[in-house]
Amino acid sequence: MERFKEEWERYRGIVEEGLDVFLPHEDEYPQSLYRAMRYAVFSGGKRLRPVLTLAVAEAFGSDPKLLLPQAVAIELIHTFTLVHDDLPDIDNDDYRRGKPTVHKVFGNAIAILTGDALFALAHKVAIAGSLPDGTKLRILREINDALCHRGVIEGQVADIESLQKEPDYEDMLFIHTHKTGKLIEASTVVGAIGAGASEEEVASIREYGRKVGLAFQIMDDILDAVGDEKEVGKRLRKDFNRASAVRILGLDGARRKMDELVDGAIAVVDRVLGRRGWFLKEMANFIRERTY
Amino acid sequence: MERFKEEWERYRGIVEEGLDVFLPHEDEYPQSLYRAMRYAVFSGGKRLRPVLTLAVAEAFGSDPKLLLPQAVAIELIHTFTLVHDDLPDIDNDDYRRGKPTVHKVFGNAIAILTGDALFALAHKVAIAGSLPDGTKLRILREINDALCHRGVIEGQVADIESLQKEPDYEDMLFIHTHKTGKLIEASTVVGAIGAGASEEEVASIREYGRKVGLAFQIMDDILDAVGDEKEVGKRLRKDFNRASAVRILGLDGARRKMDELVDGAIAVVDRVLGRRGWFLKEMANFIRERTY
Repeated sequence: MERFKEEWERYRGIVEEGLDVFLPHEDEYPQSLYRAMRYAVFSGGKRLRPVLTLAVAEAFGSDPKLLLPQAVAIELIHTFTLVHDDLPDIDNDDYRRGKPTVHKVFGNAIAILTGDALFALAHKVAIAGSLPDGTKLRILREINDALCHRGVIEGQVADIESLQKEPDYEDMLFIHTHKTGKLIEASTVVGAIGAGASEEEVASIREYGRKVGLAFQIMDDILDAVGDEKEVGKRLRKDFNRASAVRILGLDGARRKMDELVDGAIAVVDRVLGRRGWFLKEMANFIRERTY
Repeated sequence: MERFKEEWERYRGIVEEGLDVFLPHEDEYPQSLYRAMRYAVFSGGKRLRPVLTLAVAEAFGSDPKLLLPQAVAIELIHTFTLVHDDLPDIDNDDYRRGKPTVHKVFGNAIAILTGDALFALAHKVAIAGSLPDGTKLRILREINDALCHRGVIEGQVADIESLQKEPDYEDMLFIHTHKTGKLIEASTVVGAIGAGASEEEVASIREYGRKVGLAFQIMDDILDAVGDEKEVGKRLRKDFNRASAVRILGLDGARRKMDELVDGAIAVVDRVLGRRGWFLKEMANFIRERTY
């Protein structure tokens, strides 16, 4: 476990440095935009997604730094989705990671445009670096497939629509695998593509990513139901969380589903990567055990 | 002039067909998102930007259909910026092209997510088609440069900030060349890059695009001051249009500046393309003479 935390910190250090390099300086004009972009990005996140990208790439024998632009792009896109989701018109969240959300500090207009700017910047960053052109294009397609036409945005819309009805297990699965799962899945797949893994390996890593992505959101629901608000750093017990796995499966049922997913994810990595996949297996376990 | 209108209609027909092919069907789940995306896109726009892309490409000897995905992507991005700009938190516009804006029909949350989805889809479309990988990546960079880090989004933020002060000529130039000009400039440059024009030709077309982009926004300000609300299809005489060229230069001054830009744009095309550039020259004249 100690080794896992150290390794995570090593990857996270690479990501933080990359984010700092690729984000415009906050003294540039117009300042409010760049200050808001940096405020949104540097808010003490776990960097789960870009860390997964780098870790998958390294497990397949690649120098993780080769994929740093693409990992940074994924974190910028994740941040863009959070900034927009927190808006009063959508989830109306005032706190994120224990800090006031972007629109609380900079206003709604700047928050909307900050999300847009992070999204545009992400695409510029995703095509930087020295990967072959064809690989860059494939990664871009993977990332945008994760967002639109059966992606994160569809999951968010389905979540909003779930407020108007009694969501069932199928609704919950759609929302969770799309709203949260798709980008986590893409984070792992991008690592494999960038490292030149075979099609079969990419498909296996996709299965791993899909399982840990869904497990991650189920754990989010469990924390929403029984977690500690201070530790988690955001408002819990949200009454609009209608498609919660805990609400639909019960607390025990949600835990069982999560266990099944985490065990399955570990089995996939065991098969494809063996011991080289130790960090990815520990990551799956972390997702099951996390308290924040 | 008749020939110009016919040619515009021919290009527009290609664009409309491309938009219909690339947008998800509105019966797909979640319907509200896809209906909103199609509502936003099929609202009777002039398709100025993608028409410019196709026309520049054809002027340089390319089959315009080769660049259709990239032209469609530019129109999707333009639409995304309109949907977000119209939001109550930003410009708070209820009408666009004579129809209720997206948030008036579908609500603010869906409007924000519709913009995001159009943006993501645009990137998938921009890397479709048969252009070489390196050309696709260069076009992607051009489009995203037009949006962020001295792009459309910075222009929008500067426009919002101009409400807090007395904007001068320099502020107006920054806002207009970025908020409106950058994407028009990119539309022309993408056509030249996609058609395999030389670096020198690309630079000249950029100059043309920059001039007509700025002229287009100055004409928007002139129409805002003296246009017919029914014909223009949106609210005019906006009190928040503080960085208006008419407000800063006066009506005659704004017209003089526009004439200078349009004449300059025509001279550039004359030099680089001669008679092959006839449509681009007519387009510059159209921008000067338009009443809608």
